[in-house]
Amino acid sequence: MTSYHPPLRDLQFCLDELLDYPAHYATLSLAADLGREDVGFILGEVAKFSQEVLAPLYVSGDTEGAHCDNGRVTSPHGFADAYRRYVDGGWPRLGNLPEHGGQPAPYSLKVAASEFMQTANHAWCMYALLNDGAIRTLMSFASPALVKAFVPKLVSGEWMSTMCLTEPQCGSDLNLVRCKAEATADGSYRITGKIFISSGEQDFSQNIVHLVLARLQDVPVGTRGISLFVVPKRKLLTDGTAGDANAMRCLSIEHKMGLKASATCVMAFDAAEGWLVGEPNRGLNAMFVYINKSRLGTAQQGQAHAEGAYQTCLAYARERRAGRAPSGRVSDRDADPLLVHPDIRRMLLTQKAIAEGGRTLVLYCAQWVDRADGDDPVQRETAERYLALLTPIAKGAVSEWGSEACDLGIQILGGHGYMKEWGVEQRVRDVRITRIYEGTTGIQALDLLGRKILGPQRETLQAFTQEILDFCAGATSNGPLRVMTAALNDAVARWRAATNRIEQQSGDANHVPAVAVDYLMLAGYVTVAWLWARAAEVALRKLSASPDEREFYAAKVQTAQFWFERILPRIAVHEAAIAAGSGSLMGISEEGFGAGR
Amino acid sequence: MTSYHPPLRDLQFCLDELLDYPAHYATLSLAADLGREDVGFILGEVAKFSQEVLAPLYVSGDTEGAHCDNGRVTSPHGFADAYRRYVDGGWPRLGNLPEHGGQPAPYSLKVAASEFMQTANHAWCMYALLNDGAIRTLMSFASPALVKAFVPKLVSGEWMSTMCLTEPQCGSDLNLVRCKAEATADGSYRITGKIFISSGEQDFSQNIVHLVLARLQDVPVGTRGISLFVVPKRKLLTDGTAGDANAMRCLSIEHKMGLKASATCVMAFDAAEGWLVGEPNRGLNAMFVYINKSRLGTAQQGQAHAEGAYQTCLAYARERRAGRAPSGRVSDRDADPLLVHPDIRRMLLTQKAIAEGGRTLVLYCAQWVDRADGDDPVQRETAERYLALLTPIAKGAVSEWGSEACDLGIQILGGHGYMKEWGVEQRVRDVRITRIYEGTTGIQALDLLGRKILGPQRETLQAFTQEILDFCAGATSNGPLRVMTAALNDAVARWRAATNRIEQQSGDANHVPAVAVDYLMLAGYVTVAWLWARAAEVALRKLSASPDEREFYAAKVQTAQFWFERILPRIAVHEAAIAAGSGSLMGISEEGFGAGR
Repeated sequence: MTSYHPPLRDLQFCLDELLDYPAHYATLSLAADLGREDVGFILGEVAKFSQEVLAPLYVSGDTEGAHCDNGRVTSPHGFADAYRRYVDGGWPRLGNLPEHGGQPAPYSLKVAASEFMQTANHAWCMYALLNDGAIRTLMSFASPALVKAFVPKLVSGEWMSTMCLTEPQCGSDLNLVRCKAEATADGSYRITGKIFISSGEQDFSQNIVHLVLARLQDVPVGTRGISLFVVPKRKLLTDGTAGDANAMRCLSIEHKMGLKASATCVMAFDAAEGWLVGEPNRGLNAMFVYINKSRLGTAQQGQAHAEGAYQTCLAYARERRAGRAPSGRVSDRDADPLLVHPDIRRMLLTQKAIAEGGRTLVLYCAQWVDRADGDDPVQRETAERYLALLTPIAKGAVSEWGSEACDLGIQILGGHGYMKEWGVEQRVRDVRITRIYEGTTGIQALDLLGRKILGPQRETLQAFTQEILDFCAGATSNGPLRVMTAALNDAVARWRAATNRIEQQSGDANHVPAVAVDYLMLAGYVTVAWLWARAAEVALRKLSASPDEREFYAAKVQTAQFWFERILPRIAVHEAAIAAGSGSLMGISEEGFGAGR
Repeated sequence: MTSYHPPLRDLQFCLDELLDYPAHYATLSLAADLGREDVGFILGEVAKFSQEVLAPLYVSGDTEGAHCDNGRVTSPHGFADAYRRYVDGGWPRLGNLPEHGGQPAPYSLKVAASEFMQTANHAWCMYALLNDGAIRTLMSFASPALVKAFVPKLVSGEWMSTMCLTEPQCGSDLNLVRCKAEATADGSYRITGKIFISSGEQDFSQNIVHLVLARLQDVPVGTRGISLFVVPKRKLLTDGTAGDANAMRCLSIEHKMGLKASATCVMAFDAAEGWLVGEPNRGLNAMFVYINKSRLGTAQQGQAHAEGAYQTCLAYARERRAGRAPSGRVSDRDADPLLVHPDIRRMLLTQKAIAEGGRTLVLYCAQWVDRADGDDPVQRETAERYLALLTPIAKGAVSEWGSEACDLGIQILGGHGYMKEWGVEQRVRDVRITRIYEGTTGIQALDLLGRKILGPQRETLQAFTQEILDFCAGATSNGPLRVMTAALNDAVARWRAATNRIEQQSGDANHVPAVAVDYLMLAGYVTVAWLWARAAEVALRKLSASPDEREFYAAKVQTAQFWFERILPRIAVHEAAIAAGSGSLMGISEEGFGAGR
């Protein structure tokens, strides 16, 4: 892999120039004191850590892989060490409450910083960045005693955590959870089951705090009979430190396409001691607090890989020579650099547009998370509605685009892209999981269309798309922006028309699941087109004021134009699929599928 | 991997019912005696060999990989053994001349049979199926003495061969070939250079016959100074058997994303003894005889992986249970099979439509190859023109679709798709090379649009598209077919309009390379839509005659409808890209690409 350069300048553009984070932070009591310098310092330090400590372990971690020997998991060389440096730097404390040893910060700041770590080493993040969800779930639902027992150790990073919900027979459909919990006389429970979970066992921390979905005895079938438990790897001594081993064991780790440095553990819980978190049979409810945020994190992983692939490919396209520029040679050497070729540029711009557009979408959503975490109840409610709509769009679309960007990376490098040494094929393998975990694209799409838009968020869609139309109406109408806002107006009209069209098909139970993925992708293309138009508006304003950074702003406008000319037109395909509906999908019989073989 | 079932019935549909191979063979002197029974026997035997011998080595070959130790290459367990069985069965002899020990057969028959081997074990085929190209190149260009020395050993399969053209600095751009050839007094040459080549060294055969591109001294720069040489691993004794080692060595093998069982060798030729094939400085010309046919083979590899992925995914979707059918449960168990879900069906049908549509396209092209190999000079010329047009379309589009089908395979299996044990992620890794080798999709597109359509094949395009329009005009106009032919008429008009539009942009040197890939994909979608409409026409006719195989024919019609409803609409995106042209690609500066990082 070529070296990784954290895109601090582009991030700053998103935060300060496009999304006006300074004004946003001024409205948050939690962040009112947070100056640009503080933000800059934190981002700069995480960038340095990512570039210097994590990125050099990216390829070696894949080559070495994680190993499991007799229940003991070993992470690749340097991984646990990097975590110790991370803990020593106090980074796990960021964004947590002072009473738990934390250093308060808005969620969005962690999101902004974590892109660097995800690009530098996704697999390492699979160990190191999981505590937030567990902390938040425990704080929302666990008893004060459990919070006191676990949260400070997770905030400091001394202990680590997992969220266990995937069983052999049960991936997307949590109705099928079989893991069992038995009450005991002392108020604790005995948890038994087999669970697949990343970092279920590792060599980073002395204790691992598992949050586990399981069924109590005599409960309703399906998800209404699932409860949540906290089950530590080592039982707690009376002084709160970790004592004897609990009754669980890592049977093996999975052999995967990518993320080989991350240990996906097959865990067996054999009457392990645990405690109930929240109310009995309400485990899924608690779990979703965790899952919704991790979905935004998964969107970011897709985006982060797009950025990483782009950096490698751009460096290659500048160095590698082949053929001549179509309009005449640009070099005295025996061939011109790849970057002169229009088709190479098409692929690089697709990567760039995804990396930067995805970054903007994630940081836009993160502002809504901040508001949802804030004090103002009206803002909170609005934020929850926006997140209900935007989270599945971001998770679904950006993970799909991240795969596309990495796949194009192989194509840009040609034969070299297929070789391991360049690290691009590894990104294809690593990013591929983002379309699956935390709910597949299909699951996100059903959530967006079935549960949200055809459910309680119909008006949120109307309000959100109206915001886009208002932007178009208000945008200064200079040349390039006029073209974009015209296309955006049209695209919003088509998004709305597609929604209406689907609503009219309510007589066909198969219609919504038949078109949901296409609907989600359409929504993603239009939403990011809006963010690109906003970026172009800002950049054009800066350009007209003759800035020092002419190349940066001009490239912003050009990349926005690329999105509108070459990416947004894809909505036509999704419209056609929505128009086609379920017809050609449902007619074919099971025998028909297999016929001819 | 679930077991592989060679799609004999579907192949028979393509050959006998759709493309009327019996009539085609009746026109070929080479195949006039070839009855359906002969064809059936050959296909059945290759199917058996593929299913029983090759398929069981697919996953194990990837897990074990090829190894290189001190110049010696070891293929995975069972690979060399399978090759011995292949040779013992006389299969390498098929399609070769009796005077070389061959058993005559039209090229298309080998193509039809090779799909099974490619699906069962692409990596094994990277060793075993390379001789055809070398035999054909030698027969077309080499001296009678060289033909006599090498061809019979290649026909029997006793020796194997390679085609060496990729150097460290030189992938797509053959102008950059640096390998050197020095004439000696005895008429032989000394070849020196470093070359990347699949199976450059292996443990299958005693001798390896390398065809190598190299430059004689004092020749023009660029491709006009490249000659072709035959360079055996072992020098030939006077009795024609293999003697001393020639001066070459495998330095190492590449670590690749996929095809790990295939040894991609870094070969060093150090004044190795070789002989000129054909005229000096005309090596590229000779090489292209080989390359054009291997491009069709590469298209088939993409198609073959789509078939393989489809079979695994269909078996999984029938077995695995999650959720409920949207229109109400279909099973008394705790969940319904995946196959009830519309989005799973969308993905399966995409795979099926690609596997079967790609098969039809490859077999349609193979008929043209037969005609190009035939005796009739008028037919030969027409066939060469059609192949000039269709080969880059097939290679480019089907390899892209093959990747898509395998990638969807991971999505259908969800978390299991990401695990190695199911073999679908391996297909994604293995098929990925088909978009790169034998010329990337970008290279195919430049060949199609720049060299062919804007060159001598403009009229061929007109004739070919007219054939499609004539089909539409002549098709019996029953319901489903009428919808298809209307869409096809429209699509052809749009293809032609896109061509005209590009021709009008001749002032912009960047226009053609900026739109070529989109143009190629558009051409692919329309061409296969035509083949799907033809398949539907045949199937509808059979259905109306109340056949025994109702499910098979109904599924054909439904899959054709799927192509028209869900796949063909993608041409809108490619039209938009063609309309956008080079503008948003060329404006951005090199600094602009890197800005923000």
